[in-house]
Amino acid sequence: MQSLYKTSHLLDTEHLSHKELNLIFDLARKFKNNDTLGTHRGTNVGFLFHEASTRTKGSFLIACKNLGINVLDLSPQNSSFVKGESLVDTAENLIALGVNLFVIRHNQSGIMNYLSEKIDVPIINGGDGMHAHPTQALLDAFTLIEHFGSIENKKVSIIGDIKHSRVARSNIHTLKTLGAEITVIGPKTFIPIGIEKMGVNISYSLDTILESDIIMALRIQKERQLSGLIPSFSDYASCYGIKEKHLTEIKSEAVIMHPGPVNRGIEISGKVADSKNSLILEQTTNGIFIRMAVISLLLEGNL
Amino acid sequence: MQSLYKTSHLLDTEHLSHKELNLIFDLARKFKNNDTLGTHRGTNVGFLFHEASTRTKGSFLIACKNLGINVLDLSPQNSSFVKGESLVDTAENLIALGVNLFVIRHNQSGIMNYLSEKIDVPIINGGDGMHAHPTQALLDAFTLIEHFGSIENKKVSIIGDIKHSRVARSNIHTLKTLGAEITVIGPKTFIPIGIEKMGVNISYSLDTILESDIIMALRIQKERQLSGLIPSFSDYASCYGIKEKHLTEIKSEAVIMHPGPVNRGIEISGKVADSKNSLILEQTTNGIFIRMAVISLLLEGNL
Amino acid sequence: MQSLYKTSHLLDTEHLSHKELNLIFDLARKFKNNDTLGTHRGTNVGFLFHEASTRTKGSFLIACKNLGINVLDLSPQNSSFVKGESLVDTAENLIALGVNLFVIRHNQSGIMNYLSEKIDVPIINGGDGMHAHPTQALLDAFTLIEHFGSIENKKVSIIGDIKHSRVARSNIHTLKTLGAEITVIGPKTFIPIGIEKMGVNISYSLDTILESDIIMALRIQKERQLSGLIPSFSDYASCYGIKEKHLTEIKSEAVIMHPGPVNRGIEISGKVADSKNSLILEQTTNGIFIRMAVISLLLEGNL
Repeated sequence: MQSLYKTSHLLDTEHLSHKELNLIFDLARKFKNNDTLGTHRGTNVGFLFHEASTRTKGSFLIACKNLGINVLDLSPQNSSFVKGESLVDTAENLIALGVNLFVIRHNQSGIMNYLSEKIDVPIINGGDGMHAHPTQALLDAFTLIEHFGSIENKKVSIIGDIKHSRVARSNIHTLKTLGAEITVIGPKTFIPIGIEKMGVNISYSLDTILESDIIMALRIQKERQLSGLIPSFSDYASCYGIKEKHLTEIKSEAVIMHPGPVNRGIEISGKVADSKNSLILEQTTNGIFIRMAVISLLLEGNL
Repeated sequence: MQSLYKTSHLLDTEHLSHKELNLIFDLARKFKNNDTLGTHRGTNVGFLFHEASTRTKGSFLIACKNLGINVLDLSPQNSSFVKGESLVDTAENLIALGVNLFVIRHNQSGIMNYLSEKIDVPIINGGDGMHAHPTQALLDAFTLIEHFGSIENKKVSIIGDIKHSRVARSNIHTLKTLGAEITVIGPKTFIPIGIEKMGVNISYSLDTILESDIIMALRIQKERQLSGLIPSFSDYASCYGIKEKHLTEIKSEAVIMHPGPVNRGIEISGKVADSKNSLILEQTTNGIFIRMAVISLLLEGNL
Repeated sequence: MQSLYKTSHLLDTEHLSHKELNLIFDLARKFKNNDTLGTHRGTNVGFLFHEASTRTKGSFLIACKNLGINVLDLSPQNSSFVKGESLVDTAENLIALGVNLFVIRHNQSGIMNYLSEKIDVPIINGGDGMHAHPTQALLDAFTLIEHFGSIENKKVSIIGDIKHSRVARSNIHTLKTLGAEITVIGPKTFIPIGIEKMGVNISYSLDTILESDIIMALRIQKERQLSGLIPSFSDYASCYGIKEKHLTEIKSEAVIMHPGPVNRGIEISGKVADSKNSLILEQTTNGIFIRMAVISLLLEGNL
């Protein structure tokens, strides 16, 4: 994977083949079933989270602890490591300190692709700008395969701010690799021009979810600058929020997903989040096993 | 304990029977004597400290490490986990991540009682508003029993801002359960109306401590809004601060306690804090064993 | 060492004999070669970093983990431990919590000397004001001895803000103990009056490095108040920055060092930092082994 680089990394999902996806899912399944303990005692993983995160960070942290790995959290909020130093210098110094793998989150799209050309240890992208969030897409796909067996030809709706969503982008790549049929849904300001070139359908109406097998709501990034893109959060909720009434309208076997944290009452209502159709907590749980699998495979040079 | 709830929790000391107190103290004693190692390897404990703390947090941290427990510190200063999510959602997601028990501190009194109705894993209250701080009361009682054997009929003075003190409230419950006779001491603005209904005496003069076996000074919360309640800290110190001269006036076998951190020269003078009557450092040390005991008992379903 | 105090500490390098330096280096070498695993499982080390740090902190953290030591990071950014409490009270309470050794960084010069008179567990100075940074000096000397075998009579240039540098001060002590000949280089405002009494030469010109075996650039502390001392950073860089052209002018076997983090283009250029003469990453790596050695020796009472 990523043969462009000196070392294997997980920077996006675009370059992951169906076979590589299966490799990851098989190992995640083993971890989940406790078949394999996969210890990497003595290994040091460096966390560089340049954007706030704890769902993803907490999940990576437990994944590392389960594998017996030491975590060095050198995220800027915890540290001054990065001040006055380039990210490359920081990474090289951490390698000199014994770091064997990095998990990085950064608000600049593509920064890890640049970094990966400079250093020799694997990088896992924990989310970069609007570019990619590969482990989220992997855990979503893993959860769906666990639920449906296969998602070939399943109809997927992805609802929300597709334009600014790295989760959407990474999910589109894996879901297409796995043979699903994708429609992105949102107001025009949220649909990037040319998205159809990724092989997805476009809809501006939430009615599309009535035909879907998989309904994936994206988080509205309250903290991001959205002024002008939507009139208000309540307006968005009224047009694109999944509400209790939808539960009787969608296919009974349809599943509802959300990468979290959920803004209840905006993207989805509390009743929907807690309904039997919801896979939200399964997503969280599976995140640990997917991250254990990816870390293991990269450390062993098997990805 | 707390049969109101689906799972056992430690939310206050009000509902702890004498028998349950002994159960906790017996296990704490075993941990202190290294009789029992009580390992819970593979267990994940989530820390949610919504108020600054490190004495309590550090003590819980060492308790967890001694038990082989992984700690996930998702306190808001470290994390954005809670942003845009209710505490219930946060907790449910952490449970999905594998958290087996929570230690929570929060400035809202009673919030953990609400949370405990919603989730199925044990919660330990690390202090909530002006309501309760059960592990502090347990470690205080444990320290006293270790020192005196029994505290039945011992005279206890609790001095300070009784009104706003969760430490006072939790201590009153355990000390009464253990048969002690309690007097609360402070300026009128610090004594809550109706406190005598808890079965305690009231005094407005520090002279009361001359008859006491146990003298417990509370911390003046400098960071809280006290404007109007007392004229000044030095005024408080002059009327209610325990000073060197008291050491010759109090019973020679009387003990002096403080939950820490001590404002030396306000609640008690440096000489008093360091005197042979002081149990302050014993309190700190015992905190670890009490917390190990409570965590163990809750994880094993034995409380 | 430090027989002034009740317990051994590492507060500066001034009092370390050549024999004691060798003791430290020998153990560091063993750790580096994996000859000795030196486990201190069950030991608690308290971190009190009152100044931002992560290179040093990360290095101490890995050193502790390698030794099986629990780290309690009670640095003020993580904690409120210190609020309203003197450093002595904080330390005593941490000792009561089971802390066996402290690593402290503080902006007040000499504060640890004061603290060391009051408490009974070893303190390692992780940098105090403009006074000392002993583990940095030890890792620098270790790196040089590893490289050269001996540094007796080697010519060392230390370039930068000597006046405000604890790194310079600690290095001067160890390098002189090991027999090196030292010149400090910088603008007059950076050279403290009377520095020649430490047995060093003074130069105001970077040309001096052409004769040096060891060229040590200090970090310009951008975050410190430098107004007035130098006209601008670019001015400093043009007069005292080590640039690519110097690589052909200095002795071919000369080595270039920097305590990090490097301000590339100010103290040294990127080409110089990455050149074959640079020992910068070796310094980082060796920091772990030096810190393992110092922690081990102090815990065992052998220093």
